Amino acid sequence: MPWLYETYHDLSAIGIHITDKLHEEQSPYQKIEVYDTRGHGRLLLLDGMVMLTELDEFVYHELISHIPLCIHPDPRRVLVVGGGDGGTVREVLRHPGVERVVLCEIDERVTRVCQRWIPAVAGRLDDPRVELVFADAVEYVRTHPGSFDAVLVDSSEPIGPAAGLFRAEFFADLRRALRPGGIVSAQTESPFYAADTVRSVFAELGSVFSRVHAYYGCIPTYPSGCWTFALAGDTRGPEHLDLARTSAVAGRYVGPSLGAGVFNLPEFIRQLVSAPHGP
Amino acid sequence: MPWLYETYHDLSAIGIHITDKLHEEQSPYQKIEVYDTRGHGRLLLLDGMVMLTELDEFVYHELISHIPLCIHPDPRRVLVVGGGDGGTVREVLRHPGVERVVLCEIDERVTRVCQRWIPAVAGRLDDPRVELVFADAVEYVRTHPGSFDAVLVDSSEPIGPAAGLFRAEFFADLRRALRPGGIVSAQTESPFYAADTVRSVFAELGSVFSRVHAYYGCIPTYPSGCWTFALAGDTRGPEHLDLARTSAVAGRYVGPSLGAGVFNLPEFIRQLVSAPHGP
Repeated sequence: MPWLYETYHDLSAIGIHITDKLHEEQSPYQKIEVYDTRGHGRLLLLDGMVMLTELDEFVYHELISHIPLCIHPDPRRVLVVGGGDGGTVREVLRHPGVERVVLCEIDERVTRVCQRWIPAVAGRLDDPRVELVFADAVEYVRTHPGSFDAVLVDSSEPIGPAAGLFRAEFFADLRRALRPGGIVSAQTESPFYAADTVRSVFAELGSVFSRVHAYYGCIPTYPSGCWTFALAGDTRGPEHLDLARTSAVAGRYVGPSLGAGVFNLPEFIRQLVSAPHGP
Repeated sequence: MPWLYETYHDLSAIGIHITDKLHEEQSPYQKIEVYDTRGHGRLLLLDGMVMLTELDEFVYHELISHIPLCIHPDPRRVLVVGGGDGGTVREVLRHPGVERVVLCEIDERVTRVCQRWIPAVAGRLDDPRVELVFADAVEYVRTHPGSFDAVLVDSSEPIGPAAGLFRAEFFADLRRALRPGGIVSAQTESPFYAADTVRSVFAELGSVFSRVHAYYGCIPTYPSGCWTFALAGDTRGPEHLDLARTSAVAGRYVGPSLGAGVFNLPEFIRQLVSAPHGP
């Protein structure tokens, strides 16, 4: 079993050198696998798709959390949608002002497997500020209006269990779930291999929120290695990024040197997210 | 032959769906192959390593050319080291002030193959401003002091024919090849899979030039999809990027939205390029 391959749209593939299979199960929602690798640490696969490796998970988890939380003036209540591996929660907890983090993950097995096998990522889920909710986030968000300063949509691909997290109805419910001045971040796929998804998600976000901004980062084990994120709200944007707080939570990706540079978009990404409803 | 795989340091691999082999030859320097692909256009391989695909070559070629040329106040004479595929020259020619571009490529066969099979990249090499020199760039640079406003080091990997282009002696010769106020750019490998190379190249550049700055971009078909570049000189840096000229040459990556954001480094890259001799 030395190599594991994930194919993207029959166009390209990534291969990772694996050394050991640690776990495999079929949950009610998906197939969950954990491997040891050469050079990438532990690897989590859901339905054959790489969700994270310990080599590069910091990029995704820091970008989806610190960017919105350092733009919001004072985030205290945070909802993480999806993100059952716990990596986003780990980063949220580095913000001392955060009083409560709700993790709403549809598949409890993902969380339990990560707690057992990938503690470097899931190891902070027992923090007293964390509330675990194993439920469908579409329903949870709809029934919790005015509840959160920040919602971080840490979903898997827009096929399978996470499909509902890419629709305009969900974005409208997200907006209602925010407290005044609240903000949303979401992962929005590869601009190289999923350009149509990027374009349509930003158009839908733009039809719901007054301010929508794209940002991007380098994630080697995701398709194309280039990944987009959305920041959505009604009041704040990149110009509000608090560099002092960015420095205080600085990890291996987000920090004072990166600053708001992730909003300085390559031209082809800017074009994808600008029309017709974008910022 | 539906898939072609390139392995990186036995850690990871990229696969590209190929549909046709168009050309293969063994030159005096390396094996040269050209394929048609699904979704990536034409693909150039040298010794089994992906040099470019038509899907994403714009990223590399725009970053290595437009960033230094929009930072230099008035680049007229430009040297491209390596870059036999012609993509960097194509971008340099978009700067109306450039009077002369010398392409110094050790392997004439790479250029001839690309002119025949990848005209979208190599098609501007017959421009009257271009001079083709098929020779060892180490020797060429050493014997042309005070000759260029910008030198763009468009080398292949630091193994094989390009090994000499990553050494401090070469960087010192590069500095002497510059006219007053001249500037250098160079590709400097992946910060994820070649961290030691990135660190040592920046340390060596820092021992030669007064100002060395790293920048980065997303290149899906290079190892990790995340790539670093160096900007080196004695006077100018990111703060001198001329946004008006950036807009005038704007392509699919470099443009007014990107601006100097590529110098806003992720923290782990900043740490790699900062010690011990860096900026």
